Amino acid sequence: PANKKILFLPGDGIGPEVMRQVRRVIDWMDRKRGLTFDVSEGLVGGAAIDAHGVPLADETLAEAKAADCVLLGAVGGPKWDNIGFDKRPEAGLLALRKELGLFANLRPAIVFDALVDASTLKADVVRGLNIMIVRELTGGVYFGEPRGITDLGNGERRGLNTQSYTTSEIRRVATVAFELARQRGRKLHSVEKANVMESGLLWREEVTKLHKESFTDVELQHMYADNCAMQLLKNPKQFDVIVTDNLFGDILSDEAAMLTGSLGMLPSASLGAADAAGNRKALYEPVHGSAPDIAGKDIANPIATMLSFAMALRYSFDRGQDADMIEKAVQNVLGGGMRTADIMAPGMARCSTTVMGDSILREL
Amino acid sequence: PANKKILFLPGDGIGPEVMRQVRRVIDWMDRKRGLTFDVSEGLVGGAAIDAHGVPLADETLAEAKAADCVLLGAVGGPKWDNIGFDKRPEAGLLALRKELGLFANLRPAIVFDALVDASTLKADVVRGLNIMIVRELTGGVYFGEPRGITDLGNGERRGLNTQSYTTSEIRRVATVAFELARQRGRKLHSVEKANVMESGLLWREEVTKLHKESFTDVELQHMYADNCAMQLLKNPKQFDVIVTDNLFGDILSDEAAMLTGSLGMLPSASLGAADAAGNRKALYEPVHGSAPDIAGKDIANPIATMLSFAMALRYSFDRGQDADMIEKAVQNVLGGGMRTADIMAPGMARCSTTVMGDSILREL
Ligand SMILES: CC(C)[C@H](C(=O)O)[C@@H](O)C(=O)O
Ligand SMILES: CC(C)[C@H](C(=O)O)[C@@H](O)C(=O)O
Repeated sequence: PANKKILFLPGDGIGPEVMRQVRRVIDWMDRKRGLTFDVSEGLVGGAAIDAHGVPLADETLAEAKAADCVLLGAVGGPKWDNIGFDKRPEAGLLALRKELGLFANLRPAIVFDALVDASTLKADVVRGLNIMIVRELTGGVYFGEPRGITDLGNGERRGLNTQSYTTSEIRRVATVAFELARQRGRKLHSVEKANVMESGLLWREEVTKLHKESFTDVELQHMYADNCAMQLLKNPKQFDVIVTDNLFGDILSDEAAMLTGSLGMLPSASLGAADAAGNRKALYEPVHGSAPDIAGKDIANPIATMLSFAMALRYSFDRGQDADMIEKAVQNVLGGGMRTADIMAPGMARCSTTVMGDSILREL
Repeated sequence: PANKKILFLPGDGIGPEVMRQVRRVIDWMDRKRGLTFDVSEGLVGGAAIDAHGVPLADETLAEAKAADCVLLGAVGGPKWDNIGFDKRPEAGLLALRKELGLFANLRPAIVFDALVDASTLKADVVRGLNIMIVRELTGGVYFGEPRGITDLGNGERRGLNTQSYTTSEIRRVATVAFELARQRGRKLHSVEKANVMESGLLWREEVTKLHKESFTDVELQHMYADNCAMQLLKNPKQFDVIVTDNLFGDILSDEAAMLTGSLGMLPSASLGAADAAGNRKALYEPVHGSAPDIAGKDIANPIATMLSFAMALRYSFDRGQDADMIEKAVQNVLGGGMRTADIMAPGMARCSTTVMGDSILREL
């Protein structure tokens, strides 16, 4: 069969330098694991604005559609902060999500044993934490119409957005979450504001129905988003899988990420629907941003991007064993005391982006 | 002058029993501080549904409008969980907010020295924490039209809500926040998702304009809501005052509340516009819910409601000194080791709702 195709979109800030370390792992896979990828590279975000005047060129989008998966670094930076709403770096990312139909965003929040102390929470509260947040990614207030700012006269303006969800949008993302829960701790929390928003009420009703139809082996609990924000702090280990909408997911997955104290460690996957052959469009990216302040200094942590590639191996290429190998290598390197600046702690060895890459390759 | 009028709305669950302790403090104020209130009582939430079939009767709303302020306990409980969307206990609370025009919700998140260990966060991270969140309370997706669930045929439905903000809605709540910041640490964070939502972009532009016009002595920073959810965990003491919309405020103020670890301690104030005489409609309520599981057992913590009354003294009756007295009494009682069950810790004395009330009165 033809080689699998990966599109690299390094983006802005530290994106390119952390992606470079993944490139080395891919070369290693090629030599040692008989897994050859065709890797091509494109521009997104600020880098694309600088080159083409738009945050995602049509050709890049076409390449993304043709690839088996996309690996993205990060987008944005102060340079592009005062650009129009539709032309900003983030618009490139949103267009990728929407055009590839990546409706399920998987955001693990995992506390690595070696990094328990990085959390601002007490060690007992977070040790062993392993939550999977499934965030709806192509609907809700991010894409709802009508939207915009209108002039009402007399110096008054109105800003408007629309939160909208349909039965099938809710069911497809909830199905992903139920299936993940089934492979994990069989516990799903569905999160909305059904007490205030009809879109949340529909969400609750549809998830309840789907549960009864197909997933009675998974324990389902409904929770309001404000309560979820509290429970994540009070007792995060009560959660296994959480499914929620685009906007609540944006906030709650970042809160959950910060519970771990080490954003530089966290990967994410964004998945589309499976076609007849079982293939689905997918984009993998680290949770952290482009960190313009440390870009180009070879001090960024490449692990989140490395683990995003591991997720790609697992979810796009059915190579769970290779994914396990990378995850194990990362754990061993951390166990050995190696730390990039963001996760540095007393008694550990501080290393550069490149040396972290070296160490992971050596472990492999 | 005529006595000031307070409407008591104890509501459901533990509402009535915590309000009873405030009643005792009011009696004490009458005898010792020459401050006589006319207190009347009404029904809201489930209690009103049981009595009148609606969560807020018209007469109760009229009384609330006529009062100088409303003191509310808590609403809701499993008994009323499967009631229609417009008839649920929460609808009573939302109607009160909207009809009284209570657009500014003040939610302090304060860590009391005696309770530092109640937080799941490390003591160093939260010791001395004192954040004031100002949440917009009568606009946004909570009240925006169109809204509802529509049948699309073929088993498909759509749930819809509308997020809307106007220039004047944004300016009036931001003014409250800037003025509070001016009396505190002179630092304001304005929180939205201007990178994704036009309503958030308008919010950012209007707050920026107001800042330049009238509050250049306050330091203003803009922050995305997802980043705020992270920063509250990473370094909560970076915040002084936060202003945000109704929905983000719901989530972020609950997250901030849980940073303290002791929800039973946190009050809130909801304020309307000042009339020509400088009076404003106001509602005060504890942050915690109705806690149906412990209702009627005399074990709930009355402090949050007590401190809500202190906020009433400060914001509605210009009696800052009396408010200080109550706050000081609470601190002394905690310093003395008295604890209700929710904040109980090794080496402390566990007490009932009533005994906590006794102790605070004794301190006064
Ligand atoms: C960059 C931004 C548009 C994006 C979002 O809000 O979805 C980011 O916060 C994320 O979570 O991936
Ligand atoms: C009870 C509910 C309607 C309410 C809200 O969402 O505003 C509550 O969570 C609050 O924060 O006061």
